[in-house]
Parts: sequence; C-alpha cells; structure tokens
Amino acid sequence: MDFDKLVHQPTRLQIFAYLYSHGETSFPDLKEALDVTEGNLASHIGKMEDADCVAVEKQFVDRKPQTTYELTDLGREKFEEHIGTLEALIDDLDG
Amino acid sequence: MDFDKLVHQPTRLQIFAYLYSHGETSFPDLKEALDVTEGNLASHIGKMEDADCVAVEKQFVDRKPQTTYELTDLGREKFEEHIGTLEALIDDLDG
Repeated sequence: MDFDKLVHQPTRLQIFAYLYSHGETSFPDLKEALDVTEGNLASHIGKMEDADCVAVEKQFVDRKPQTTYELTDLGREKFEEHIGTLEALIDDLDG
Repeated sequence: MDFDKLVHQPTRLQIFAYLYSHGETSFPDLKEALDVTEGNLASHIGKMEDADCVAVEKQFVDRKPQTTYELTDLGREKFEEHIGTLEALIDDLDG
C-alpha cells in the first residue's frame, strides 16, 4: 500500500479535500474552513504548489488583491489515488 | 477534523489496520504482510506500545521465543475513531 506523504499529511489532506470539493477558494476562506493558522496554511499550500498540485491565481477584486487556489489536474489525480488507497484500507477491514 | 498522528502516520495506519482485522500477529508475519524493514516495524510498534495501543506477548513455541502483538481496547478504539474521521472526509467529498 502506497501512501503519498504529500497528500497524507493531516493538514494537507484537508486542504486537498476542501479544494477538491469546493473548487477555487480564496486564502481567507480556506483558512476559516480548515481552522488553521495563516503561517501553517501558507507553508502547506507552498509545498502543494512546489509539487504542481495547486495553482495560484492573484487578481484584484474591488481594487483589493485576492489570492485564490485550486487543485491542478495532477493535484486532483493524486488526491483521487490517495482516497482510493484509504478506501481500500477501510474495505479490507471487513475481509 | 481531528487527526491523531499516532494512528495517521502511514506505516502505523497499516499496522493498526492489519492488527485490527487479523488479531494477534507475530513479528515476522507482520513484517511480511506490511513489507517494512525490521527496524522500521520495531520502531513504530514501540510507539504504539508506549501509547498503550498495542499489547506484546512473548512466549515459547517449539522452544523458540515468539513475540506476538495485538491491539489493546484503547488501540481498537483509537483506530475506529480515526477510520470514522477518514470516512467523514471521504463522504464530505460528495457534498
């Protein structure tokens, strides 16, 4: 059984899950949804960006800068693979 | 969402899962089933023992010493809680 540590780490697993189901999300919304500190969130998002799993977009909304994040195709793929691994582990518990 | 790092760490998650579904297991059987090194397995089992999640039994079988492991009640409880957390995360993906 292969666990990808990039995805499995608890905070990142939650970031992946949130972005997977909610799509493009701003930094403040993500911070509030996951109840993590700004530094912690920025650090994990940075690792996901480095691994080409998250795309960052910076734009101006009402003249204020806003940064949003969404999973890349690779990010979705890695997350789906990981969920498959976890589901297999859970299914095996009955066998 | 609360992830217990004792249980969530990839190798330990697999040890928990194996012992949960297979009951009492010898060290060599566990090592073979999970495809981990002896040192790695011993280190993770040690942490689970320290947290009162695994009970160790040493006995002689055909005059050879044999060490077996099984989850304690606390270990089963922590694992079940963790699986519940993972299932909730997976279920939320559809919502």
